[in-house]
Amino acid sequence: MVEVCLLGCGGMMPLPHRRLAALLIRYKGRMILIDCGEGTQLSVRQAGWGFKAIDAVLFTHCHADHIAGLPGFLLTLGNAGRTEPLKLVGPKGLADVVRGLCVIAPNLPFDVQALELSEETSIQIGGVIVENLPMTHTVPCFAYSLYVPRSGRFDAERARLLGIPVSLWHRLQHGETITHAGKTYRPESVLGPQRRGIKITYCTDARPSRKLMLFCGGSDLLVCEGLYGENEKLSDAIEKKHMIFSEAAQVAKESGSRELWLTHYSPSLKVPEEYIHEAASVFPNSFCGYDLKTAAFRFSE
Amino acid sequence: MVEVCLLGCGGMMPLPHRRLAALLIRYKGRMILIDCGEGTQLSVRQAGWGFKAIDAVLFTHCHADHIAGLPGFLLTLGNAGRTEPLKLVGPKGLADVVRGLCVIAPNLPFDVQALELSEETSIQIGGVIVENLPMTHTVPCFAYSLYVPRSGRFDAERARLLGIPVSLWHRLQHGETITHAGKTYRPESVLGPQRRGIKITYCTDARPSRKLMLFCGGSDLLVCEGLYGENEKLSDAIEKKHMIFSEAAQVAKESGSRELWLTHYSPSLKVPEEYIHEAASVFPNSFCGYDLKTAAFRFSE
Repeated sequence: MVEVCLLGCGGMMPLPHRRLAALLIRYKGRMILIDCGEGTQLSVRQAGWGFKAIDAVLFTHCHADHIAGLPGFLLTLGNAGRTEPLKLVGPKGLADVVRGLCVIAPNLPFDVQALELSEETSIQIGGVIVENLPMTHTVPCFAYSLYVPRSGRFDAERARLLGIPVSLWHRLQHGETITHAGKTYRPESVLGPQRRGIKITYCTDARPSRKLMLFCGGSDLLVCEGLYGENEKLSDAIEKKHMIFSEAAQVAKESGSRELWLTHYSPSLKVPEEYIHEAASVFPNSFCGYDLKTAAFRFSE
Repeated sequence: MVEVCLLGCGGMMPLPHRRLAALLIRYKGRMILIDCGEGTQLSVRQAGWGFKAIDAVLFTHCHADHIAGLPGFLLTLGNAGRTEPLKLVGPKGLADVVRGLCVIAPNLPFDVQALELSEETSIQIGGVIVENLPMTHTVPCFAYSLYVPRSGRFDAERARLLGIPVSLWHRLQHGETITHAGKTYRPESVLGPQRRGIKITYCTDARPSRKLMLFCGGSDLLVCEGLYGENEKLSDAIEKKHMIFSEAAQVAKESGSRELWLTHYSPSLKVPEEYIHEAASVFPNSFCGYDLKTAAFRFSE
C-alpha cells in the first residue's frame, strides 16, 4: 500500500487558508516529500505521519514557493531527533540554493546531501523507484514519478518440485537469491512475471507535452498543476508556463492515468471546485486537490 | 496614534495554531515590521494593513525563527507592486544571511538595503526613532525601542505677539523652520517643551539585565519574550538564554513600563494563559500575547 497526502494545493504564495503545494508519500513506513515551500513543515505536522521517517525531499525546481521552507524544515527535523543523512534531490542548481538557504540552518545533527539529477534518470529511495522528466518552465524543473514495483506471484508448487525448504520461501518471494546447504536458489525460478506496481506522478510548473503524457503513462494517481480553472485563461497559462484544468485532464486522459488531483492553484483562483467540470468533461476521474487530501493505493488484484 | 499588531506569538518553530513571533507597527500610515520568520507574510496578510507601506524590517537576530520568512516576504512585497527600496536592519551578520536567503528571491522590483547597526545606535525611519540594545543570546541579538516623539504645545498667543502669519502656524507646529518675507521663524520660539511621546519596546531571545530595564524605561508597551510560564523552568530558560514570564514582568515593573505583552512561547507551552498569574503577580498590567493581538496607543493628554 502506498499512501499519499497532498500537503498543500497553493501556487506562488502561501495563503491563510491554503498551504503551498507539496506531496508526502509513505510506503512501508518510510516517506518521501516532494517540494518544501514556506510553511510545508506545518503541513507535515498536520498530516500526522511524523518527521523522522522522511528519507528524501525531491524538489521540482528552486522557485521560492517550492523550496523556501527548507531551512525551517531541516531545523524541525533536527529537533525531532534525526541523525541519519537526508537526501535532497532536484535539478541543476539545487546545491547552490541549498547552500544559500542553509546559512540559517547551521550545525544540523544530520548530514544533508544535495543531489542534482541528470535528466531522465532513475534512482531508488527505499523501495521506491524515482524517475524524473525535465519540464518546460522558466528555470530547470522536473516532473517526478514514484513507482513501487511488485514482484511476480510465488509458485508454491514449483518451489516444492524444486525441493526448496519452506523456511526460504519468504526470502525468495522478496527477490533474494539464497545459497543454502550448497545449493543456490534464485527468485526468478519460483516467481511469475512481474505484476503491476503502484505509480504516483507529480507535475507542477509545466506546460503539457507529448513527452509528459508518456512519462505519466499508467499512473494510479497523477497530481498535476492547474494554475487556472477557466479555459479562457489558457493564454495567461501559456505565458506563465503553467497549465489550466482542462490541460491537466488531457494529460491524465492521454497517459491512461487512473485518477487526477489538481493542485498548485493561483491565489486568484478562489474556489477551484467551481471549475472542476472543465477537467471532468475531459477526464471524468478528476478531483480538486485540497490541503491534506489523503488516499491509499493498493496493488490491484 | 501608534498601532501595534503582534503578528505571532510562537518561538522556535511555527505551529499550526501559532505563528512565529513578529510585530508590526503603524504610524501615520507607514509601517515597520520586526522579525520575519517562516509564515510571517501570512500574518501580515491577516493583519489587513497591506504590504506596500512597510518601510523597514528590523531583525532582532538571524535565527531561522526570526528571519526564514524573508525571501517569501520580499517576493510577495514585489507582487504587491513595491518599487521603493526596503531597509533591512539588524545586528552584525545580517548582510551575509540576507545574501544567502535571497538566492531564491532574485530580480526583485525594488532595492533591498541590508543595514548592520552598531550597538546602541539610533536611526530614524519615517517619524519613528529606532534604538537598539545588544542582548545576551547565543548570536548577536538586539532589543528595539520605537519612539514617536511629540513636540511641545503650540503657543498661539506668542505666535500672534511675534507677528507670525497664521498660514505658517501649521508648519511651525510640525517643527519646520520657515523663512517668509525676509524673516526666519523657528519652531522653538512658539512651541513649549517637548511632551511625552509614545514608546514601544520589543525584546525576545534575551536574558533580563539592568541595562535592558533602563532601555525599556517608560515604555507605553513592552512586548517581551516569555519562553516558559512556570517559575520552575527558570534554569531551563537560563541555559537557553531566554526568559520566563515572571522575569519579563520584572523587566516591565523595573522599567516603569505601562503594559506588558508576553510572546515567543516555547512550543511546549500549550496554554500560556494558565501561567499569566506568574507575570501579573509581579506586574499587574501583564497580558498574554496572541496571534494578531492589536492595540492603538495615543499621546497622553
